[in-house]
Amino acid sequence: MGNLAIEWLGNKVKILDQTKLPQQEVYLELSDHQSIASAITELKIRGAPAIGIVGAYAIALAALKIEAGSKGGFLEKLRGVIETIAATRPTARNLFAGIDRMEEVAQADNTIEQTKAALVGEAIKIHSEEVEADQKLSQMGAELIEDGFTILTHCNAGSLATAGYGTALGVIKRAEEQGKKIKVLATETRPLLQGARLTTWELKKANIPVTLITDSMAGYFMSRGEVSCVIVGADRIAANGDTANKIGTYSLAVLAKENGIPFYVAAPTTTIDLSLASGDEIPIEQRSPDEVTHIQRVGIAPEGVDAANPAFDVTPHRYITAIITERGIIKEPYGGELKEMVL
Amino acid sequence: MGNLAIEWLGNKVKILDQTKLPQQEVYLELSDHQSIASAITELKIRGAPAIGIVGAYAIALAALKIEAGSKGGFLEKLRGVIETIAATRPTARNLFAGIDRMEEVAQADNTIEQTKAALVGEAIKIHSEEVEADQKLSQMGAELIEDGFTILTHCNAGSLATAGYGTALGVIKRAEEQGKKIKVLATETRPLLQGARLTTWELKKANIPVTLITDSMAGYFMSRGEVSCVIVGADRIAANGDTANKIGTYSLAVLAKENGIPFYVAAPTTTIDLSLASGDEIPIEQRSPDEVTHIQRVGIAPEGVDAANPAFDVTPHRYITAIITERGIIKEPYGGELKEMVL
Repeated sequence: MGNLAIEWLGNKVKILDQTKLPQQEVYLELSDHQSIASAITELKIRGAPAIGIVGAYAIALAALKIEAGSKGGFLEKLRGVIETIAATRPTARNLFAGIDRMEEVAQADNTIEQTKAALVGEAIKIHSEEVEADQKLSQMGAELIEDGFTILTHCNAGSLATAGYGTALGVIKRAEEQGKKIKVLATETRPLLQGARLTTWELKKANIPVTLITDSMAGYFMSRGEVSCVIVGADRIAANGDTANKIGTYSLAVLAKENGIPFYVAAPTTTIDLSLASGDEIPIEQRSPDEVTHIQRVGIAPEGVDAANPAFDVTPHRYITAIITERGIIKEPYGGELKEMVL
Repeated sequence: MGNLAIEWLGNKVKILDQTKLPQQEVYLELSDHQSIASAITELKIRGAPAIGIVGAYAIALAALKIEAGSKGGFLEKLRGVIETIAATRPTARNLFAGIDRMEEVAQADNTIEQTKAALVGEAIKIHSEEVEADQKLSQMGAELIEDGFTILTHCNAGSLATAGYGTALGVIKRAEEQGKKIKVLATETRPLLQGARLTTWELKKANIPVTLITDSMAGYFMSRGEVSCVIVGADRIAANGDTANKIGTYSLAVLAKENGIPFYVAAPTTTIDLSLASGDEIPIEQRSPDEVTHIQRVGIAPEGVDAANPAFDVTPHRYITAIITERGIIKEPYGGELKEMVL
């Protein structure tokens, strides 16, 4: 599963179409930045670290095709590409972290040909660093997991979301590899069912026992003492530790606190955004109401009913027991340590 | 809409098949207790007050058909009928409250023919009392609703669930009739989508603005100050005020408390079960995992994945701001007042 979700083929990127899972395993080979931008918007590829990686590859692929008489002309054309990629999804920090790195490489004092090669190299480096970060943070996070734990997770923060080992699921897999007996409760994660479709699929492949529940059942199991800890991924972590993640994460954090259950966020440092003082500043993507009124294209509500569809919510840092990154596990107060970790 | 959900036709019961809504309005005429028992189990008719009513009608219909040489023989056959009805669904108190009343009538010192007539009369009385209770509790509850409120509700506690005006939705409708401008956030209520299918349908018919959200979005809107209060129905209320209601209710109550939002339970006194000291004793129905792994018969998860499906959860009384009944609105400490209200 290691590198299955994203593969660099030199002149295109191969991705597993996550909208088709678990029924079909369909791979797409994308050779231009427009098709990658569409794949991100349509969630064919998703998960904060994963879209950071393919966003960088999209810029590299576009750069290879740019014909310009001067470096200035090259950069101007690249700017348009970057704007397209940046406009795909607003919440995940990793996308913008990747874009920032690609821009810095583009701006360096090099010829056009050197710059093209450097951009490809940087995208590959972003990819390999995310894979390595997963390995490290999974190893560190696994120390928090005890034999016999039942772990609740939300959405999908596994290999599919990160191109590597996974973040929340990476921690779970590593703990299992250490010989600990683990059970997982996976929330289905409406509206787009990443938990039901992707997390159960990944855990079954890894032979880790998983029970699917609706999002509304998490409190039931927590209140009965049947959850040892909660681990989720993250899309953006503000400087104070406030964390944006898939809609429903905030509710799980409040329920965990109310029931005295540790609530962990597992994310690479590329998810941390020191430019935002708190979670209030994190932009929340509002997606189409059709995703709520329909499930896999079947209508579930009366025709024409209004629906809201915020794709993420923000969990204030006071609900988060620890943030697990590849550089260490940190706890309240987050402010100082997060800064130290990233800078 | 008043009596649409359940109609007594003398020798059969007419119900609106709620599994077909909102796509189709299909009415069923059921003339024997077995078909009513199946309709309850399959949720063609649902909602605690509603199944209390049809459960009583089922017993009356069966009684009319019993041929027995003695009252003892009659009662023995009736016992089998009552066992079938009692085995349909375990959680809703109203079903057992109705059964208890029917049993008491059956035991009275009357001839078989008199008993048959009395049983029909008692079922009709249960029906009309529930309709009346809805009206009264809606009127009382509406006093808690202010002009401009955005009310979050879960599952369906409207006309469909009660055969009358509704409980949670009754309060909302009454407030709107009083000229208050109300907006409703309706949770879809996985797994069976009673919010998406039924609550939106009822509110659209009543011309009350409604926005559909997934269950996981409730916390998001509460944390942003966009919810004025939460109102839900109930399936069983223990002597201390602990309340069983549709799975996900507990989570909403915890989130409401965390965000300083009033959380109201609206239910007729037939939902109160003084025989249970606390919610720990309320039996929770576990339904088929297929309802979680499939949505309207379409599979959403890998083949063979395990799933849990508790249909209800228990909200401890400390999270409940007030319980609205047809005999008054009560608050903590619930113990004494609940007892006084029922006895």
